[in-house]
Amino acid sequence: MSGGGAAMESSLLCAKQLLLCCLFLFLWALAAVAEAKTVHEQWDISYQFTHSDCVRKLAVTINGGTPGPTIRAVQGDTVVVTVKNLLMTENVAIHWHGIRQLGTPWADGTEGVTQCPILPGDTFEYRFVVDRPGTYMYHAHYGMQRSAGLNGMIVVAAAPGSADAEPFAYDGGEHEVLLNDWWHKSTYEQAAGLAAVPIVWVGEPQSLLINGRGRYNCSAMASDAAAACNATHPECAPQVFAVVPGRTYRFRIASVTSLSALNFEIEGHEMTVVETDGHYVKPFVVKNLNVYSGETYSVLIKADQDPNRNYWLASNVVSRKPGTPTGTAVLSYYGGRSSPRAPPPTAPPAGPAWNDSAYRINQSLATVAHPEHAHPPPPRADRTILLLNSQNKIDGRIKWAINNVSFTLPHTPYLVALKHGLLGAFDQRPPPETYNHTGYDVYGVQANPNATTSDGLYRLAFGSVVDVVLQNANMLAPNNSETHPWHLHGHDFWTLGFGVGRFDPAVHPATYNLRDPVMKNTVAVHPFGWTALRFRADNPGVWAFHCHIEAHFFMGMGVAFEEGIERVGDLPEEIRRCVSTKGGGH
Amino acid sequence: MSGGGAAMESSLLCAKQLLLCCLFLFLWALAAVAEAKTVHEQWDISYQFTHSDCVRKLAVTINGGTPGPTIRAVQGDTVVVTVKNLLMTENVAIHWHGIRQLGTPWADGTEGVTQCPILPGDTFEYRFVVDRPGTYMYHAHYGMQRSAGLNGMIVVAAAPGSADAEPFAYDGGEHEVLLNDWWHKSTYEQAAGLAAVPIVWVGEPQSLLINGRGRYNCSAMASDAAAACNATHPECAPQVFAVVPGRTYRFRIASVTSLSALNFEIEGHEMTVVETDGHYVKPFVVKNLNVYSGETYSVLIKADQDPNRNYWLASNVVSRKPGTPTGTAVLSYYGGRSSPRAPPPTAPPAGPAWNDSAYRINQSLATVAHPEHAHPPPPRADRTILLLNSQNKIDGRIKWAINNVSFTLPHTPYLVALKHGLLGAFDQRPPPETYNHTGYDVYGVQANPNATTSDGLYRLAFGSVVDVVLQNANMLAPNNSETHPWHLHGHDFWTLGFGVGRFDPAVHPATYNLRDPVMKNTVAVHPFGWTALRFRADNPGVWAFHCHIEAHFFMGMGVAFEEGIERVGDLPEEIRRCVSTKGGGH
Repeated sequence: MSGGGAAMESSLLCAKQLLLCCLFLFLWALAAVAEAKTVHEQWDISYQFTHSDCVRKLAVTINGGTPGPTIRAVQGDTVVVTVKNLLMTENVAIHWHGIRQLGTPWADGTEGVTQCPILPGDTFEYRFVVDRPGTYMYHAHYGMQRSAGLNGMIVVAAAPGSADAEPFAYDGGEHEVLLNDWWHKSTYEQAAGLAAVPIVWVGEPQSLLINGRGRYNCSAMASDAAAACNATHPECAPQVFAVVPGRTYRFRIASVTSLSALNFEIEGHEMTVVETDGHYVKPFVVKNLNVYSGETYSVLIKADQDPNRNYWLASNVVSRKPGTPTGTAVLSYYGGRSSPRAPPPTAPPAGPAWNDSAYRINQSLATVAHPEHAHPPPPRADRTILLLNSQNKIDGRIKWAINNVSFTLPHTPYLVALKHGLLGAFDQRPPPETYNHTGYDVYGVQANPNATTSDGLYRLAFGSVVDVVLQNANMLAPNNSETHPWHLHGHDFWTLGFGVGRFDPAVHPATYNLRDPVMKNTVAVHPFGWTALRFRADNPGVWAFHCHIEAHFFMGMGVAFEEGIERVGDLPEEIRRCVSTKGGGH
Repeated sequence: MSGGGAAMESSLLCAKQLLLCCLFLFLWALAAVAEAKTVHEQWDISYQFTHSDCVRKLAVTINGGTPGPTIRAVQGDTVVVTVKNLLMTENVAIHWHGIRQLGTPWADGTEGVTQCPILPGDTFEYRFVVDRPGTYMYHAHYGMQRSAGLNGMIVVAAAPGSADAEPFAYDGGEHEVLLNDWWHKSTYEQAAGLAAVPIVWVGEPQSLLINGRGRYNCSAMASDAAAACNATHPECAPQVFAVVPGRTYRFRIASVTSLSALNFEIEGHEMTVVETDGHYVKPFVVKNLNVYSGETYSVLIKADQDPNRNYWLASNVVSRKPGTPTGTAVLSYYGGRSSPRAPPPTAPPAGPAWNDSAYRINQSLATVAHPEHAHPPPPRADRTILLLNSQNKIDGRIKWAINNVSFTLPHTPYLVALKHGLLGAFDQRPPPETYNHTGYDVYGVQANPNATTSDGLYRLAFGSVVDVVLQNANMLAPNNSETHPWHLHGHDFWTLGFGVGRFDPAVHPATYNLRDPVMKNTVAVHPFGWTALRFRADNPGVWAFHCHIEAHFFMGMGVAFEEGIERVGDLPEEIRRCVSTKGGGH
């Protein structure tokens, strides 16, 4: 009896537990289907001395740190970021990279395009919906403030039960990896050098950072400068990523580099690529991953190696001749015999040959849409724009130009100028639709590299399908062509094709991948090569499209697109502060 | 006959010459009394690498240089300076120091007080009348941009025949001497340090500049830093002042130092002080002259020394323990046997003992109005404001405070807020009229140094006579009190008295000099001492009054006065760009 009683008790307990369990599941489901939430962030932007690579440097920080906090939200949430500018004399603007800003084009944070800058002492509210799950980033979009420290990640989870739920599983959890490059010189000096005659190029970064942490070799510094270098500063202790043996982890990777194309590797662990720029890709396995500035990836790794030692996470410069040591972090197994902070017993991976373009193009070609999540592109374009990327000279200054036009931002933001009909605010002549491509030698130094400057923009028919082919070419120096990661605001585009050499409009469109092209917001244009992309101009607003290398955009490597301006709602007063009520001056 | 004819011819010729002479004199007089002219200046503000003290440094420049061009005008002229901000992310505002801005309070250039800052890409027109002859200066009044390079001189000549003509003669001409101090660290780093906890003090300057030129000892630099030091760079070649033997010269001297009180000397040449801050003084002779930041002087020197050698112009730090070598330039005689650029054969003058306060107070007391140009002060004040200058702590941060209130600038400029009735734009409580002075020990460290922060301001009855007594005291460290040069915008004041120790309102006013006090716009408050001044609140507008040491103003050492706001005309739209149309937020 007492035995039966005990059994009944036990069974009751079990029922109770089941009930509790059901209740818990019910509440969880309720929460999951509940109305989308609002995610609030309160940010103070200020100068702070930081030690990101152990060397003391004045950085532009968010709430005292760089990188800033990761914004975490669920698909459909509204994100509200209240930005208070506590800089002394400097304005700011922050871009939410990869968020399309459907219905909120004024919240894109692109100074000169979608808003006036935020003045010192001012508070500005960015409010937008994150409508798609995925890995994104944010960063300043004003001067070179991104490189000065104003950057971070955005992680949007799929809403439970959403059709956008991940087509892959991982039982270990997630890790975030934000890649960056870092200079000891201030960005003011870098920008002044870029504008000088002759140009003072920014040069290779002193360090590569992983989650804002790098290690400069203090002992290599001259005695007086070394005082500012502290190898044991906690801010530059390498990030440790802990894993449980046997589990699978999702690593979300984003690059906010100012200049560098990077190759990322987790020593001894193959990576399965499953997402890029918020879109699921047909999984493919790599030993290491090329990540260009402005791109994001998710990879899965299985913690299936010897748990008794640590492993390097390594970031190496590719596409430019490296002048910077490998950026590192540490992968450490829970329960292993190695201390989490112990350096791995091996040398950090050196990455692939920096100048192996073919290796990198192969990755671009391998990145296609996940079969269950393919968004087939429209079969043809209404308009094709051919954009030659070339290095040029204007008034003796080295610039980048698109179809021989070096881009400058207007003082009055396009969005305000177009919405309010301020025709004097920018050059009303549209930039060229193409370049003289017949017989253009993309491998040669051009005889006459002189270009002009303009803040004119492309106006797109609302809803039309636009093809853009980005053509890379030789720079001013012979036998030199770089990788340019182009980023489109306000849209995702289909990556239709990559090629080496001169794009031929009569030949190459036939080779486009119209079956399963992946959608992205940032794509590489490889050395001497071309990249073709397609998008639908269906997001009312004005959108920048530019090389994501900060110095290149500063030197004119960009364009702007307008579409459906007449459908844009009333602009908030806060974005118009720099605009004269007398009408925009040119 | 022929003789008589020749005589007549000669006499006719003489008459003709006389006529021509008369005509010339008439035309000259006509020109002199002709309508005042407009002096136009077109300025581009940009970052440039400069070598002011031979060390490469990024400076904020005017038309590519620092200091900027001297503005030359004649009394009564209208000066129009069109400022184009070509900085990348940073705003600017420029103050015309010593110009009272009668009728144009919006042109005073004081960010937060009289205008919103000028945004990158914006063009702003400063337009004002220079109504009095004299030596003045201009400089940025935003953040620490003055120290970053944005400064220069204004020289206003007396209108011919004016009652303000100089009561002294000089047959050699004029020379201008702009004194400054110079740091290798950026002003962004300096400001971030001042705001940090614990404070990182700016430290003593690396160099003292005369007309933007100094000489840092390159060989003392560490090897990697030395690459930025070029001892033969033309920008840091010392200025040579050439003189003709036997002639008398006017040297116009101004100090825009960020921190340093200076003593200026021309080796072997006595100086007769004849003007300060645009007012003629009763001439007195000095071997060397103390010049505080924000002050100007004219001195006469006679070129009566051995013309076959050169002489040093020397600038030495006083009042703070010097950590900076003497700033130098060269005086060279025309026709002498010495090369103009040859260093003088002697060591540069070292100046008086840095801590000889009595020596400096004596100069303050010796500086009285020229008998023919004395403006007698009103016999008594309608209101007396006692301002204790003390070093305090707020939230662990070292600050300066006035009557225990550390001054902050409002985001909406006072002028706009008051004219448009935006009461939420700043603290409506007026700051204290006095401090608990009975028994206050100005020589002791205060037990409770905690202060508060406010952007409240003093409102003055229009046309009233106001006395301000600035009381200096001990700092947070024992046995320490510094010199504070206070500058009043929009007015000249009478300098009624200087004393050492605690000011007693029952005793010291009887000692005021009401007979021939000189009028100035900047005056020193000596260590542990007090300075009494009087002005008439008859210039409609809002006016800053503050310590001219850039770091001290940044740390809260200032106040603001409003008077006759209802008499201020319509404000230009250009000064209001930072003001929300929704009303000023606090």
